[in-house]
Amino acid sequence: MVDIASRVYNHKWKIDPIVRSLIDTDFYKLLMCQSVFRNEPTAIVTFSLINRSKNIRLADIIDEGELREQLDHMRSLSLSRGESTWLRGNMFYGKRQMFRSDFMEWFEKLRLPAYHLEKIDGQYELTFEGTWPEVMLWEVPALAILVELRSRAVTADMGRFELQVLYARAMTKVWEKVERLRHVDGLRIADFGTRRRHSFMWQDWCVQAMQEGLSEKFVGTSNCLIAMRREVEAIGTNAHELPMVSSALAPDDATLREAPYKVLADWHEEHEGNLRIILPDTYGTEGFLREAPDWLASWTGIRIDSGDPAIGAEIAINWWKERGEDPTKKLVIFSDGLDVEKIIELQAMFAGRVRVSFGWGTLLTNDFRGLVENDGLAPFSLVCKAVNANGHPTVKLSDNPAKAMGPPEEIARYKRVFDVGEQTAFNVEV
Amino acid sequence: MVDIASRVYNHKWKIDPIVRSLIDTDFYKLLMCQSVFRNEPTAIVTFSLINRSKNIRLADIIDEGELREQLDHMRSLSLSRGESTWLRGNMFYGKRQMFRSDFMEWFEKLRLPAYHLEKIDGQYELTFEGTWPEVMLWEVPALAILVELRSRAVTADMGRFELQVLYARAMTKVWEKVERLRHVDGLRIADFGTRRRHSFMWQDWCVQAMQEGLSEKFVGTSNCLIAMRREVEAIGTNAHELPMVSSALAPDDATLREAPYKVLADWHEEHEGNLRIILPDTYGTEGFLREAPDWLASWTGIRIDSGDPAIGAEIAINWWKERGEDPTKKLVIFSDGLDVEKIIELQAMFAGRVRVSFGWGTLLTNDFRGLVENDGLAPFSLVCKAVNANGHPTVKLSDNPAKAMGPPEEIARYKRVFDVGEQTAFNVEV
Repeated sequence: MVDIASRVYNHKWKIDPIVRSLIDTDFYKLLMCQSVFRNEPTAIVTFSLINRSKNIRLADIIDEGELREQLDHMRSLSLSRGESTWLRGNMFYGKRQMFRSDFMEWFEKLRLPAYHLEKIDGQYELTFEGTWPEVMLWEVPALAILVELRSRAVTADMGRFELQVLYARAMTKVWEKVERLRHVDGLRIADFGTRRRHSFMWQDWCVQAMQEGLSEKFVGTSNCLIAMRREVEAIGTNAHELPMVSSALAPDDATLREAPYKVLADWHEEHEGNLRIILPDTYGTEGFLREAPDWLASWTGIRIDSGDPAIGAEIAINWWKERGEDPTKKLVIFSDGLDVEKIIELQAMFAGRVRVSFGWGTLLTNDFRGLVENDGLAPFSLVCKAVNANGHPTVKLSDNPAKAMGPPEEIARYKRVFDVGEQTAFNVEV
Repeated sequence: MVDIASRVYNHKWKIDPIVRSLIDTDFYKLLMCQSVFRNEPTAIVTFSLINRSKNIRLADIIDEGELREQLDHMRSLSLSRGESTWLRGNMFYGKRQMFRSDFMEWFEKLRLPAYHLEKIDGQYELTFEGTWPEVMLWEVPALAILVELRSRAVTADMGRFELQVLYARAMTKVWEKVERLRHVDGLRIADFGTRRRHSFMWQDWCVQAMQEGLSEKFVGTSNCLIAMRREVEAIGTNAHELPMVSSALAPDDATLREAPYKVLADWHEEHEGNLRIILPDTYGTEGFLREAPDWLASWTGIRIDSGDPAIGAEIAINWWKERGEDPTKKLVIFSDGLDVEKIIELQAMFAGRVRVSFGWGTLLTNDFRGLVENDGLAPFSLVCKAVNANGHPTVKLSDNPAKAMGPPEEIARYKRVFDVGEQTAFNVEV
């Protein structure tokens, strides 16, 4: 029997919205948002889309009207009662009431600020400006919208069975990865694939496949909406945006030098345990750790997000030893461009020496490589970054110069302030 | 929104019936049934299940109670009004009213006769006895029920995503075959996979995939129910059962020698064009063609169902030439144990020399080889054959002694009567 009401209701949608909830975003965005809401609520920040894969001419692939409809829909969203209840009542990282009442009251009233969209030379120039806590929530949905619109454009002309087989192949690929990971002793892995997922439904499928296939080895997802619906842990701590914006707001070099530690001092005050994870590479890992105050060495772990991950982990282990910490009690989270081979290799290298965990992103939720002609569904390197704060450009150096950002003269200044020397470039695929 | 009524209705089913329609069977069964209904309506025939794959201990895998439920359900079926209308009104092989009114009136009242089921040494001994036109309709559903119950038993303990990936892999396999066949010039291929299909829904999927993927190269399905629902051609002509039962009814050697031609003479009277397809191998192709009357050489084509298919086709071509027929106007239908490689090879060998067509069976609708542990879903060689007619055992010699059937002394007699010499054995996989 056809449910007539459902069919009629479904036909009333003007568009098929890609992001349907403000919590269809990474958990760390909300954690950082609360922190920013307390510490820097009035800074005016600009986020900008950056397509590192210049060969993917997004403006030729994605219709501007459809993109505007999706972005407009995003601005119509507000936190639902159930979402608010979940954020207020759920236990995150072992703690209840992670989100304070004043923040939740603000979040319940939030609508995303305006966007600015232009087509330039086959690419979209897409920027968002607003107070830091509100504008920062654009990053993840903006990326998810662009990536999924590209998936839709590439699959638009495919037949029904061709499509079914496309997803059959993609499912088989994910499942073969899950089957390999199932045999990795002591594995702890989470989904970090929201921003560059093939689509929302696909990410949701991947999470469920990991739940069934990996059982307790699958420790959660960064996606709040999926965590809520699938009743798994919401995972994530903090990102480059905190030191980047804080640094851009620094009035002089001395304040700049302290800014990346200052922002973590605030975090230290707010969070404990597994939420105390250092992301050391914003202005070069080696200098950051060398100059770090001792309380930072007491943090639970470190996240390796650029450069050679094995070298990054060795640097962290040596640093902990130098500071009198026991590395076997520390957590190393690998999260940069992971796929099964690398995960297995890193687990074998570091299991027993430190506690190891993986945040698996794009090659979990968007490994459509090789599945259509001209590889039109292969993932690509799209980011959305804070580029300006109160009129000052932000800078990122990273451990991989291919991921560096900012005006050349500011990059030079930051390299001098943070004493960063020669860096090795790594190819950035996703 | 949940359609509550549908859910409640679905929960009222006591079993999940495998065969839900009397026309969920091969089209040639109905053609032959009509012929038998006219020519031999009172002969009492026994059909028996024969599992040639002794290593598959069906009675250990399939629950007897479940098997009985499915067989009992089969006996509760009768022709629906829509099915009857389709059989009466549809155009088959270019002809309307293929099924005569007297036959349709009988078919509308038909219920399948009783079955006899025993477990012996890990196998089911399953026999059906009744008048030939009624009992013959057990063959295809009995096989489909047993094969699908085995599929269900093997998949019973699999998780939801494990199952989804199983079907994703199977879909990918079928689609890769379809993609290869798409490039074969002049291909004409039909689904002959009802009896040993993985499941009804799977066959239905395969047919739709062929429709989308092969377009006009896909010429139809042997399955009447699927042909009706998917609006494709119902395909099929006649089978070994006609000469086998007719021969068993022959009172002496002289009548026996003529029986395989007599039954085709009746067919000649009833059918024309593409329904005049010789199946020559029941008692050895070479002798059959050598002794065949000239009117048989005027038939449209031949179906090669055992032995080396290339040799069988060469024999047919030479025979037509000897009889003054133009082989390029004749149709050769290959239907024995086909898979993509063989199809491509045979098409390359015979395209242009004869009209070529393929009836693709088990390795279309049940290629689950290699998809689960211990290959527990690989297809196997299960048949259901007429073994007795009015108290006389039936005999089949085939062009492959591995497919021969009947008591040894009767096989010897038939070999003498039909002048069959040495034969080469071929492995029977499906």
